[in-house]
Amino acid sequence: MSVWITGAGTSSFGKQPTLSPAELAWQAIGEALEDEGRREERPGLDAVFVGSVFGEPGVAMRVLQGYAITGVPIVTVENACASGTSALHEAAVALASGRYERVLVLGVEQMTPLFKGPIIPQQTDTEGRTGLAMPSMYAMEASRWLHDGRVTLEQLAAVSVKNHRHALHNSRAQYRGDYTIAQVLDSPMISDPLTLLQCSPISDGAAAVVLSRTSRSPRDVELVATAQRAGGPWDHRSADVWGYRLIHDTARAAYDAAGLGPADVDLAEVHDAFTIGELTTTEALGLAGEGEAGPRAASGASALGGDLPINPSGGLLSRGHPLGATGVAQVAEIVWQLRGDAGGRQVEGARVGLVETMGGGVSGVDGNACVVALLRAQDREGI
Amino acid sequence: MSVWITGAGTSSFGKQPTLSPAELAWQAIGEALEDEGRREERPGLDAVFVGSVFGEPGVAMRVLQGYAITGVPIVTVENACASGTSALHEAAVALASGRYERVLVLGVEQMTPLFKGPIIPQQTDTEGRTGLAMPSMYAMEASRWLHDGRVTLEQLAAVSVKNHRHALHNSRAQYRGDYTIAQVLDSPMISDPLTLLQCSPISDGAAAVVLSRTSRSPRDVELVATAQRAGGPWDHRSADVWGYRLIHDTARAAYDAAGLGPADVDLAEVHDAFTIGELTTTEALGLAGEGEAGPRAASGASALGGDLPINPSGGLLSRGHPLGATGVAQVAEIVWQLRGDAGGRQVEGARVGLVETMGGGVSGVDGNACVVALLRAQDREGI
Repeated sequence: MSVWITGAGTSSFGKQPTLSPAELAWQAIGEALEDEGRREERPGLDAVFVGSVFGEPGVAMRVLQGYAITGVPIVTVENACASGTSALHEAAVALASGRYERVLVLGVEQMTPLFKGPIIPQQTDTEGRTGLAMPSMYAMEASRWLHDGRVTLEQLAAVSVKNHRHALHNSRAQYRGDYTIAQVLDSPMISDPLTLLQCSPISDGAAAVVLSRTSRSPRDVELVATAQRAGGPWDHRSADVWGYRLIHDTARAAYDAAGLGPADVDLAEVHDAFTIGELTTTEALGLAGEGEAGPRAASGASALGGDLPINPSGGLLSRGHPLGATGVAQVAEIVWQLRGDAGGRQVEGARVGLVETMGGGVSGVDGNACVVALLRAQDREGI
Repeated sequence: MSVWITGAGTSSFGKQPTLSPAELAWQAIGEALEDEGRREERPGLDAVFVGSVFGEPGVAMRVLQGYAITGVPIVTVENACASGTSALHEAAVALASGRYERVLVLGVEQMTPLFKGPIIPQQTDTEGRTGLAMPSMYAMEASRWLHDGRVTLEQLAAVSVKNHRHALHNSRAQYRGDYTIAQVLDSPMISDPLTLLQCSPISDGAAAVVLSRTSRSPRDVELVATAQRAGGPWDHRSADVWGYRLIHDTARAAYDAAGLGPADVDLAEVHDAFTIGELTTTEALGLAGEGEAGPRAASGASALGGDLPINPSGGLLSRGHPLGATGVAQVAEIVWQLRGDAGGRQVEGARVGLVETMGGGVSGVDGNACVVALLRAQDREGI
């Protein structure tokens, strides 16, 4: 669809309560525009698409005003954890349809001032009254797969070990470390069987990418396709765990639109809000066969150096999970990887990368929103 | 651009703390689908665009799940007070570009549980530290126009008198009443010169419209054009008050796209968050000459029965102002008016209606977001 990612940037991710959302966003925007090498053409942005969940009303305007990006349409999208990639999707569609030529996509979220402890569901809705906080939703997925023998406790923990090790090479990650399987399993229990090191943290951060209909540099990365869906009713009696079908169907739509398939994908950033999420997602995306995602995490096949690295950035588990920023940060990571700019966490020879984010979800529905994007490096040096 | 509004519905507006946002939204969605007469084709909706400012993350999914509208893309747009019309604009563009055939636009906001008193600006930003709450922003507009002799205190109050009287004919309005100018001016001072009856209330409510690329009924209303803009830097030395230029420019874009002008407009629903807002907006839209909006409010020219009624629904001042719902409710009002279904508040012979919403704004910027939409009745009975 002839959409190019011409610049990418992020802030550091972590607990940064003394920074304002605007200050976080400025880091990301500044880097994305510098990266594009067209900073002087800032007024040439036709629109701004923003992903933010907990931002104050008008947070986007405040952020953009400070960067002197004014006078163009701003659309702030809230789609729970998929807010950033939903903003990306809307931006990509707007470019592909010819509506705009060049737009900024920003994800920004400051969570630490809002959540001093765990995010407790409201007592005014079904989920709150029944304790269906996000860790519980994912814990039920894990329990089902454990019961079915589709994953083991050690394989779940291996996802955490892997992603924390990946983050050793990511100076902007919130957490990093060289943990053992035992350390992960022995960390405090959050929602059985998910322990603390298997849960993504509360984070502050921002990420930005510039999309354009035209490419001026071989460094630009092609956004080959994006797809977005919301869940249909979830049949609790289904063998598919919550969200699985939504991710599967969204991925199929993205693959079809891109003319690509799972075999073309060299690396992926997926929604590992909890360890089990990476495994169910990897299989739903077709990046591992049924029952293979866990063993692949344990064997190193999905680690840096493996045949299909998943979450080289450290993922949500280690880089952090500032909701609205997450999806855009995933995209930035793939951009850097496809350019060969990822430093110590570079996936050698990466040509095609996949981004997947799933947001929210309420009981009875198969996920709130899912976005899958496929990115491709340009041919360079005759390759 | 061949976009039709094929159904419209709202909840009641008011303080409804015992209802959930979903319950408010269901009233609006149900009425819109019934109105369309295609309720059985609910699965045929291709996407849902939602305007909500203070909704919990995933509020849209929760609402739509309860109405069994699942499995389609949901985009929740936050653009402060212009969230609802921003959602409308995105939906209209999506239809016009051929992306979708039939979509739901929903605005929903439940504010009373969140705001027990006035909305106090955060102390962490410039506006909060300087006391630039929304009443103050509008009060400065009023002060400037009073100083310039462009409006009088009595004319400001006349807007409140007019809109509360309009709402006498709107059973869903939050407030209504037959006030005198003196009563309005004698109500408690909120931000000099704006008194309580000149300020829109905190409200709960929802509104929905169905947009389609095809019309099957002469009752369908054409959405001739929408335009959306965000403000550029505001020159404080300008003779234009805050927001004026943004509204003016957005309106021009909408008029140009529609091939219509102010002289074609038979009635309008505009953003009277405060009385002065209706007057500045009416002039910025070209629906009154410079310095004429105030006298027109006082003379009844902008009242029901006048030559160009403004806010026949009662406006934000009287119908209420549940932020995300407001813009969609404005659209619903115009739909009913253009069909001749507006009952006691019907504007006789209305053929073209205008909707304007302006959202947010921070110091130094000329408004956060403005949307202007132009709606037209179909030719009927050879007219």
